[in-house]
Amino acid sequence: MISVGIVGSTGYTGFELLNIFARHPEVELAFCTSESYAGQRYCDVFACPYEQTLVPSDQAPVEEADIVFLCLPHGVSIETVARVRRAGVKAIDLSADFRMRNPADYKRWYGHEHTATDLLAEAVYGLPELYREQIAGAGLVANPGCYPTSVILGLRPLAAAGALADRRLIVDSKSGVSGAGRGLNLTTHFVEVNENFSPYNIGYKHHHISEMEQELDAAGGGPYEVTFSPHLLPVNRGIVSTMYVWLKPEWTEARVREEYERAYGGEHFVCLLPAGKLATLAHVVNTNRCAISVTQVREGQFIVCSAIDNLIKGASGQAVQNMNVMFGLSEGLGLLG
Amino acid sequence: MISVGIVGSTGYTGFELLNIFARHPEVELAFCTSESYAGQRYCDVFACPYEQTLVPSDQAPVEEADIVFLCLPHGVSIETVARVRRAGVKAIDLSADFRMRNPADYKRWYGHEHTATDLLAEAVYGLPELYREQIAGAGLVANPGCYPTSVILGLRPLAAAGALADRRLIVDSKSGVSGAGRGLNLTTHFVEVNENFSPYNIGYKHHHISEMEQELDAAGGGPYEVTFSPHLLPVNRGIVSTMYVWLKPEWTEARVREEYERAYGGEHFVCLLPAGKLATLAHVVNTNRCAISVTQVREGQFIVCSAIDNLIKGASGQAVQNMNVMFGLSEGLGLLG
Amino acid sequence: MISVGIVGSTGYTGFELLNIFARHPEVELAFCTSESYAGQRYCDVFACPYEQTLVPSDQAPVEEADIVFLCLPHGVSIETVARVRRAGVKAIDLSADFRMRNPADYKRWYGHEHTATDLLAEAVYGLPELYREQIAGAGLVANPGCYPTSVILGLRPLAAAGALADRRLIVDSKSGVSGAGRGLNLTTHFVEVNENFSPYNIGYKHHHISEMEQELDAAGGGPYEVTFSPHLLPVNRGIVSTMYVWLKPEWTEARVREEYERAYGGEHFVCLLPAGKLATLAHVVNTNRCAISVTQVREGQFIVCSAIDNLIKGASGQAVQNMNVMFGLSEGLGLLG
Amino acid sequence: MISVGIVGSTGYTGFELLNIFARHPEVELAFCTSESYAGQRYCDVFACPYEQTLVPSDQAPVEEADIVFLCLPHGVSIETVARVRRAGVKAIDLSADFRMRNPADYKRWYGHEHTATDLLAEAVYGLPELYREQIAGAGLVANPGCYPTSVILGLRPLAAAGALADRRLIVDSKSGVSGAGRGLNLTTHFVEVNENFSPYNIGYKHHHISEMEQELDAAGGGPYEVTFSPHLLPVNRGIVSTMYVWLKPEWTEARVREEYERAYGGEHFVCLLPAGKLATLAHVVNTNRCAISVTQVREGQFIVCSAIDNLIKGASGQAVQNMNVMFGLSEGLGLLG
Repeated sequence: MISVGIVGSTGYTGFELLNIFARHPEVELAFCTSESYAGQRYCDVFACPYEQTLVPSDQAPVEEADIVFLCLPHGVSIETVARVRRAGVKAIDLSADFRMRNPADYKRWYGHEHTATDLLAEAVYGLPELYREQIAGAGLVANPGCYPTSVILGLRPLAAAGALADRRLIVDSKSGVSGAGRGLNLTTHFVEVNENFSPYNIGYKHHHISEMEQELDAAGGGPYEVTFSPHLLPVNRGIVSTMYVWLKPEWTEARVREEYERAYGGEHFVCLLPAGKLATLAHVVNTNRCAISVTQVREGQFIVCSAIDNLIKGASGQAVQNMNVMFGLSEGLGLLG
Repeated sequence: MISVGIVGSTGYTGFELLNIFARHPEVELAFCTSESYAGQRYCDVFACPYEQTLVPSDQAPVEEADIVFLCLPHGVSIETVARVRRAGVKAIDLSADFRMRNPADYKRWYGHEHTATDLLAEAVYGLPELYREQIAGAGLVANPGCYPTSVILGLRPLAAAGALADRRLIVDSKSGVSGAGRGLNLTTHFVEVNENFSPYNIGYKHHHISEMEQELDAAGGGPYEVTFSPHLLPVNRGIVSTMYVWLKPEWTEARVREEYERAYGGEHFVCLLPAGKLATLAHVVNTNRCAISVTQVREGQFIVCSAIDNLIKGASGQAVQNMNVMFGLSEGLGLLG
Repeated sequence: MISVGIVGSTGYTGFELLNIFARHPEVELAFCTSESYAGQRYCDVFACPYEQTLVPSDQAPVEEADIVFLCLPHGVSIETVARVRRAGVKAIDLSADFRMRNPADYKRWYGHEHTATDLLAEAVYGLPELYREQIAGAGLVANPGCYPTSVILGLRPLAAAGALADRRLIVDSKSGVSGAGRGLNLTTHFVEVNENFSPYNIGYKHHHISEMEQELDAAGGGPYEVTFSPHLLPVNRGIVSTMYVWLKPEWTEARVREEYERAYGGEHFVCLLPAGKLATLAHVVNTNRCAISVTQVREGQFIVCSAIDNLIKGASGQAVQNMNVMFGLSEGLGLLG
Repeated sequence: MISVGIVGSTGYTGFELLNIFARHPEVELAFCTSESYAGQRYCDVFACPYEQTLVPSDQAPVEEADIVFLCLPHGVSIETVARVRRAGVKAIDLSADFRMRNPADYKRWYGHEHTATDLLAEAVYGLPELYREQIAGAGLVANPGCYPTSVILGLRPLAAAGALADRRLIVDSKSGVSGAGRGLNLTTHFVEVNENFSPYNIGYKHHHISEMEQELDAAGGGPYEVTFSPHLLPVNRGIVSTMYVWLKPEWTEARVREEYERAYGGEHFVCLLPAGKLATLAHVVNTNRCAISVTQVREGQFIVCSAIDNLIKGASGQAVQNMNVMFGLSEGLGLLG
């Protein structure tokens, strides 16, 4: 049995981790931390049957765990990750703090210096479909952001194949409200969201662009210039990204499809839809799947749609997938594919 | 033109008042107050075209208005109502502060002494279908609660006719989320409400029972004992109350229906549904209507369903209906019926 | 491995069975039938990864299965159940056709004679919390209706203990839209349901009353007279039943709670909530749980709230729970509790 | 009083017309037609108070009306429009049948020859912000499609000013479900839509592209090549179009904003949002407004967001706005702006 701890367990990604662990046969829970609910039981915080008592993070018995999942805001996570690693315990960080390879990129997008560049150097970007081998040997995994997971899985095969004729990529994404977290804010008030639909932070502003550009550039054919428009969708969970790309003339629809099949043929959690079907939330909600559809508009122009559950493949499910890889378990254990 | 002021205008009932005034031909806006948004324009607070600048309530030119609408929490409203009335200006209070005729009832249900019992004596309960004449001459109208509006309109004809065989009344109500206000609270977070449905404060706990019992007792045949179960419904607006009653043996379905027709035949905003149809939110949302259906279960047992829009007939629409009555205008002016 | 067949697999209960089987370690799929989609693959009918080809039911290799699940409309199911049983194969019928012990009750509520009364005599009512032993030995299990599951689990302990002072029981239920099936009908059109809330078939009309009265009467203290008001809730899944009962004077809140703990203390899927908490959809959606809360209103009067996922504990999850019992497996295998 | 008739009145656009007429001071209803509900009253078809009896369209007293609104499917509308015009009665056609100036475009996008090209020549495209004068003198107005209204109002100022550097325009639109009509179809079943989000007909397939290209080309700087991706949004009403454009280098953000202000400064129903705000459904639902925001991404690249209520500014509200223009009434009569 793998003994796991969760730091910052009372947000939506923490709750989703507990839901996954409840059906994962190889996991036992070492501790769950919460500052605001310390001393209460988990079932007092969410409508669920988990009776684990919440402890403040400085009382968490980190060293008793085989691995710690950190569900903290970016900026705050660095210090706790350092503490976990000093104790010799593996860590999967769900914040953005260790996702940038280059500290300069971190500063550019998050506005402050990175204070643990040694750990940054150690961290592996936790997209198993791209970095399975490195994850297997990693002590610290930086779990990808939700939007980037949908975008990178959707466009990486084209970048890697050098197919993109125009380095300007247009990404129009729509996300369910759990992506905004459980904190109290007028923008997540039911009456403000329900029957509404809102673009926000559109253009070249959202933090997550940093991951998209880093990983697509790493694939080749770049540097790319992502235009990214997130929208708030009145549903609990799920992201659909609609991506507009221009390809080099030799890239026919058949060849494009072949390239995606080559890239994802052996992947359990990536579901390439047949021609004529488009990726929707219904394909992925409550699962660890990423559904991808590729549609030719006209010669040289394609639309890639990519759908994930933002709390699962976009966060906690992917984190458990990473854990399975790190511990040599079957990659899909405890996850719905 | 009637000059109106709104105190506490940046909650949902304040916004609804502005929406109604925008199409009311006899109203001009004197002022809108807000403490938290003072100095901003209304269109910075809600997605709307109203450019009125918000003032703190102690800077509101109360005496310039012909009438002031108060959208404040109960307990807080008393003092401002007193100030408005001292200035000789009419007031419609949307809080609960002036709804109880008996100060002892106020204390019992709201937990503290009423500090303006002279004003309480002056106040008229603002349900025009019951108290039209008194409202016409009133200086202070206590606008009814949303749940009580649905329940009192639904059951009053039976109480007034002495038809109720059992004084124990069971009321099962379901309300949209705007009824909980715009304040930040985990219980109105989108992800907590959406795809959920929750009873709360069930039994004999909710403040609004005080109004239901007061007005049904005043109709006759009581005293009644209301059991009231509110539930939170994942919609923006609307209340459906399903009410279970036992009638005296002589009350056949035909006679019951006749009694409701007699009570509401001339009422513009009460819509008695024909046999076989049941009151739903779709009958009333975005209107000032109350839809009522009466269904016989078996001899002596009936179910009354009553539906309103909680922000309109349950709050701001009814307030404007009261204003129309107070100023001798056509009762439906500016309202959808 | 247990080989299972599904007849009528392309409705919501059929889809839910496939979702459960996908994570059930002891099941393999023998066949899925569909008349309207015969020849297509399952993933052409629902957004999912199941590639099973659909066969018309007369081509289904019934005898190759260890057990067949029937997801057919009532009236239609009888004949296919007979065919399955003639082949010596176990059957779980999700329709209403075998739920009534007394053929006269079936005729009364469903309007036509039962044409297989011998099979009716063999059938066991599939509520494992009540009839676990009989289910273990059964060849034919009649899976309970969704509303009755919530109501019977909610009130049975009071009936069995002889606690009910008034045999008139008031049940106000609210159900998500999947309960209305996948057939096309204006009442399930998105725009008609969304932001709406509607009572329907209220009083003493809904078929499901037959099961409630049968099972509560069997528990003792009856015969009971159920008044049942279903309402359509704008969510995909889940039922909350709010039930109003009067108990004999000796039934204090403590004693009532003790009785429920005695009844359900050992039950994995019944979750009795602590005092002060009320059963909501969030407690049960996507699980096989039934959450129950008990609230005292005043001396002798209580409100029981009971929540289930209508497609899981109210249909397919309970069916799999029954299958697990019939095959001697751990009762919760493949199910979330 | 203007006497109006509605042909095909029992879809969502017909219902919306009745809702608008109920508060329009200069309109009286001559007739409402329906084939499927002929003989019933309007309030038997929708939850509303309208008691008008529905007549089959061949019994409609067309000549008694001053104007007829046609809410029929495209292809079917041509014949009835011809009949109305032969009777010398004005017509506003809400179908696509008279929107194309060039019969060849009609054939190309709708797949069959236009059978009334003389009427086509007479028809005016009913976007009052563009063609107010022609509409004032028109006998036949072709009311624009919902998506095109949002897109043309959003991009026309840039086309007219010759600002677009790239004639390839990317339009990512999201529409509420009422846009799909009231007909029965699995794609509008509540459970299929709710908590889902789906692209459909993406690329260069949707009929409405024909209007977008026609009207933007007419403005200048074209011909344009629209890539259009509609998505189904789980809300009742509203469209948000997110549009990606590249402008010539001299078009700074200030100049772009100035151009929009020049274009729409005097328009009552077009609401240009200040810098930093983005167009959302909340700005427009239940009104005849079009909200537009303009955001610079980087030099030469902009995102225009445009929001309307698809049933009002995208259909029935715009039709009434056209009627007001045709009869010399105040353009906003009966409409919320």
